[in-house]
Amino acid sequence: MNLTILGCHSATPRTSAHPTAQVLEMRGHLFLIDCGEGTQVQLRKLKVKFSRIRNIFISHLHGDHFFGLVGLISTFRLLGREVDLHIYGPEGIKEAIVLQLKLGNSWTNYNLIFHELSSKSPETLFEDEKVSVETIPLDHRVYTNGFLFREKPGERKLNLDAAVKSRIDNSYFSKAKQGHDIENRDGVLIKNETVTHPPDPPVSYAYCSDTAYLPKIVDQIKGVTVLYHESTFLESHQHLAEATKHSTAKEAAVIAKKAEAGTLILGHYSGRYKDLEDFRREAQNVFDNVELSEDGKTFKF
Amino acid sequence: MNLTILGCHSATPRTSAHPTAQVLEMRGHLFLIDCGEGTQVQLRKLKVKFSRIRNIFISHLHGDHFFGLVGLISTFRLLGREVDLHIYGPEGIKEAIVLQLKLGNSWTNYNLIFHELSSKSPETLFEDEKVSVETIPLDHRVYTNGFLFREKPGERKLNLDAAVKSRIDNSYFSKAKQGHDIENRDGVLIKNETVTHPPDPPVSYAYCSDTAYLPKIVDQIKGVTVLYHESTFLESHQHLAEATKHSTAKEAAVIAKKAEAGTLILGHYSGRYKDLEDFRREAQNVFDNVELSEDGKTFKF
Repeated sequence: MNLTILGCHSATPRTSAHPTAQVLEMRGHLFLIDCGEGTQVQLRKLKVKFSRIRNIFISHLHGDHFFGLVGLISTFRLLGREVDLHIYGPEGIKEAIVLQLKLGNSWTNYNLIFHELSSKSPETLFEDEKVSVETIPLDHRVYTNGFLFREKPGERKLNLDAAVKSRIDNSYFSKAKQGHDIENRDGVLIKNETVTHPPDPPVSYAYCSDTAYLPKIVDQIKGVTVLYHESTFLESHQHLAEATKHSTAKEAAVIAKKAEAGTLILGHYSGRYKDLEDFRREAQNVFDNVELSEDGKTFKF
Repeated sequence: MNLTILGCHSATPRTSAHPTAQVLEMRGHLFLIDCGEGTQVQLRKLKVKFSRIRNIFISHLHGDHFFGLVGLISTFRLLGREVDLHIYGPEGIKEAIVLQLKLGNSWTNYNLIFHELSSKSPETLFEDEKVSVETIPLDHRVYTNGFLFREKPGERKLNLDAAVKSRIDNSYFSKAKQGHDIENRDGVLIKNETVTHPPDPPVSYAYCSDTAYLPKIVDQIKGVTVLYHESTFLESHQHLAEATKHSTAKEAAVIAKKAEAGTLILGHYSGRYKDLEDFRREAQNVFDNVELSEDGKTFKF
């Protein structure tokens, strides 16, 4: 699982502070999460093969998470895209995009499929044999969802030495990886555990932005490998966090601790702070494994 | 008159190719012309005091001229703008902007005043004692206007030596600059021309993008000081220019020549060309005084 931060700042785009957008690579999928203004240029700058994106998840319709979407959709058209593009986001997203394409008489020549969200309970948006994606309903000034990306357990790994030693024919290797016991060349049934190792544990990623401190999400994201949780403010501006329905670094860390997350990534910083290490320090008083998102940074898990 | 090119490329924004936007400074006004994605970041990067912008002119509703507008409007709100902002653009522009502000529950706390255009004849959009702005109806795939910015003649310039010699009292100097004949200290009427020089000739700027070759604009822009005319293509791609209702560098030069413009600035280049000097060379076969627009470049006239 690779997570590339295209932008991790709140409010207005600035010369060296991009609004929110992330690319998550998981089991061959390339998911785009949020799409602030300038996202398409960040994708180019970071050399992401963005034609591979087939699913875009928009948390909410504030500009710093959404204003780059119509431009990206238009660019896909200009680049001759043919494959379907699925957009998941709050009700109204379709009207906003379609109106702008209509005004420019710039309809896409690929299928643009909107999945408009309005539920206040978690729902599964995407599922195949490798991955599932569900909403994490959040608490912000407008209707907002986070997203929980989960790998499904993969195949077991063949222990080639053991398989040869156990006289298992090559043609049964895939069956062994699927977890079955196998009859060997001598007609003896070999226990699966003898010739395979367990698969890598499936990883998961919870994206929670933007939101006020919301402990009720903990059950849903329990044990998540990586939690991205917004931390627009430090605790010294707790009153601003409450007024604007954002979180502090400390609150993000409390959620990570309660959820027993593997790693916490902070982001969506307010522009008022000079030293982002202050976010890490504040969070680490509560939870050890804290990373800071940075525009252009890739995390590998 | 200062013209700053924020972006001068067509179609999709790329790492070092910004879509169309310009800032024109004329007699104390700061006019924004078109607003492709990323315009607000260019304004910051080039240190334009963009809070001074009170009038934004949008030629047409293709993304490369328009997708940055909603973000700029939102940023003005976040920066605490209080003064009115006037937006001039094709019918539909209000609905597109207002819908997005509504979805984000992000109404501006300043007045946002839309002037929606649909006329196919030139009309005056803005006028005060110093400057006027009128539309130049163009021919593109969607409803499009260029804009003609004209200074009004300024005051005459006082010839101080002559005024003193003619025994004119200081208190009449403003009246002299306004062009009146003046009675001197001895009761003698002094001809205005004796004590003043003519004002600087007023300058004008015609912005023509996007458009097919359209000779009928020549009468309207006759004698313009500076003509910005799109040249998306070179003559070798004339067929593409025709198919997409754009112009070639040669066609832009023919318009400049017929209009007896002072200077021609080319721009809105297609991304297919490596050496932009080819545009200058092609245009200079027809018209001498050719400049190439470049992202970040300021022209002073």
